[in-house]
Amino acid sequence: MSNQAVIVGGTIAIDNVITPQAEAKELLGGSAAYAALAASYFTKPVHLVGIIGHDYPQQHLDMLESHGVTLTGVERSNGESFTWTGEYHANMNDRTTHRVGLNVLENWSVQVPEEIASTSIVVLANMSPDNQLQMLQGCTATSRFVIADTMDLWINIANERLHDVLRVIDLFVINEGEAREFTGTSNLILAGQRLLEKGPRFVIIKLGEFGAMLFTGNPAGWEVSPVTFFRSAAFPLHEVADPTGAGDTFLGALAGYLASLGKSNFGFEDIRQAVVKGSILASFTCEEFSTRKLQSLRHEDIRARENLFKVLTSW
Amino acid sequence: MSNQAVIVGGTIAIDNVITPQAEAKELLGGSAAYAALAASYFTKPVHLVGIIGHDYPQQHLDMLESHGVTLTGVERSNGESFTWTGEYHANMNDRTTHRVGLNVLENWSVQVPEEIASTSIVVLANMSPDNQLQMLQGCTATSRFVIADTMDLWINIANERLHDVLRVIDLFVINEGEAREFTGTSNLILAGQRLLEKGPRFVIIKLGEFGAMLFTGNPAGWEVSPVTFFRSAAFPLHEVADPTGAGDTFLGALAGYLASLGKSNFGFEDIRQAVVKGSILASFTCEEFSTRKLQSLRHEDIRARENLFKVLTSW
Repeated sequence: MSNQAVIVGGTIAIDNVITPQAEAKELLGGSAAYAALAASYFTKPVHLVGIIGHDYPQQHLDMLESHGVTLTGVERSNGESFTWTGEYHANMNDRTTHRVGLNVLENWSVQVPEEIASTSIVVLANMSPDNQLQMLQGCTATSRFVIADTMDLWINIANERLHDVLRVIDLFVINEGEAREFTGTSNLILAGQRLLEKGPRFVIIKLGEFGAMLFTGNPAGWEVSPVTFFRSAAFPLHEVADPTGAGDTFLGALAGYLASLGKSNFGFEDIRQAVVKGSILASFTCEEFSTRKLQSLRHEDIRARENLFKVLTSW
Repeated sequence: MSNQAVIVGGTIAIDNVITPQAEAKELLGGSAAYAALAASYFTKPVHLVGIIGHDYPQQHLDMLESHGVTLTGVERSNGESFTWTGEYHANMNDRTTHRVGLNVLENWSVQVPEEIASTSIVVLANMSPDNQLQMLQGCTATSRFVIADTMDLWINIANERLHDVLRVIDLFVINEGEAREFTGTSNLILAGQRLLEKGPRFVIIKLGEFGAMLFTGNPAGWEVSPVTFFRSAAFPLHEVADPTGAGDTFLGALAGYLASLGKSNFGFEDIRQAVVKGSILASFTCEEFSTRKLQSLRHEDIRARENLFKVLTSW
């Protein structure tokens, strides 16, 4: 089997981002947009599933298509697009959301067009657990690998449905603060173990500037024996221009890399390598607003950074 | 040259520690006590420099001596010993200091006895910058390697003197929050670069549960090219019983390992390996109150954990 397609569902947004250094408007945003673009560096086609309004900037869609992202699964509504306006504080980690315009997301019911429904690598990027479950119902591959992300909002207002998602996926990706909140423990190793108990065979806790942790194995009596844990660093950056979408980029690159392996059942070693690809691509996203850096990468940029990353983290 | 001695100056305390799970009193504590004990797993003798009061528990001193830590440089005063009483919050990272009894530390002027003064690996564990500079003046080796740690208190009340320390040492070790505070930037990569600008040839930023970062190179135009940065993880722990002294343990193990190399001028690769030893030993310290775990290690425990650590962090 050669490399295969990946299907990525989630939000497609218009972002307005303020940082201590600058401000930018009408940016490409949304979990699925970042993830699909990141995946496109490893495999093609990438089938994007989402919903946009009549006001969605055409150039963002053109850019995605130019990277081998198909838009068959993108529903075009008469409403207004989902928008997010946020401001990063001086530390570039904390942010304040000034405005969320759910708009077209409000009554969205995810439809997966038949021609892309049999894709076997399925990414449920951050969207409501209801939307994630709808999308999964529309995906028809009998042998598939399902990866899901989430956010604190769903832990708080859709906890049961999020648990439903966890029971039907293979790999769960969540960030540090959310993992602590979701599992009720401040110890991240214990949090990883508790997330495995909820269903998925693999769990990744994203640590932002500190990298990521990968967990697998039997959660009852889980130990960090050689094949159940991996700790990746983040690529060191002097300056973070805009971390928006870094986690979504991580998710998409990870999925794209897995799809490039041409199978739909993955072992620990596959996921370990995928975590590294995710970390590398996420670092590029942080370097400019929105997808500006991510969309202009050359394969040699990725390879060079990966080689350097290895030197910087090996001993 | 075979392995050589290391001299470790700093505080020797009586600690009282409260955690959400338990409470323990009259514990061995202090920056130099942890660091000396950790160093003893890599080289002997370890010359401890510090001051204790008439009330200092003899069994703590006996334990240190049994590990090859010499007490020639430990001044015995008629006053009361330095004590620290602190309580960890549920997350085991934040802590509240309930009481500090400076006592014998208050008017301490560090004396380095002649028989240990020529030791070439010099560790200035956390104590006042004045004490650090006194100790360094007492150390007479012409070819030496000096490592210093500090804490937020000195950044705040002895900033100039701390800068004096930085100008005369080879390796500076500081934790994440303190590095951000000291350099006025939230970006840790930039913080490392700014710390290099202050004088030391090597800088390590400790990240607690997230590991450590090592920096070297020319701070003007510093880049993460292959030989100027190393990122180590922390060994994953399900449960942290008491993180007190983990940073001091890191420091001591690092210094002890360097001393074991039998030279007094180190390259990046030496320090990189030393960071790994520091990370390994620090993880043991977190597993029980005070030095209880650290003092009962076997060399095979350390080797086994290092081997596992490598598997868990390689790709």
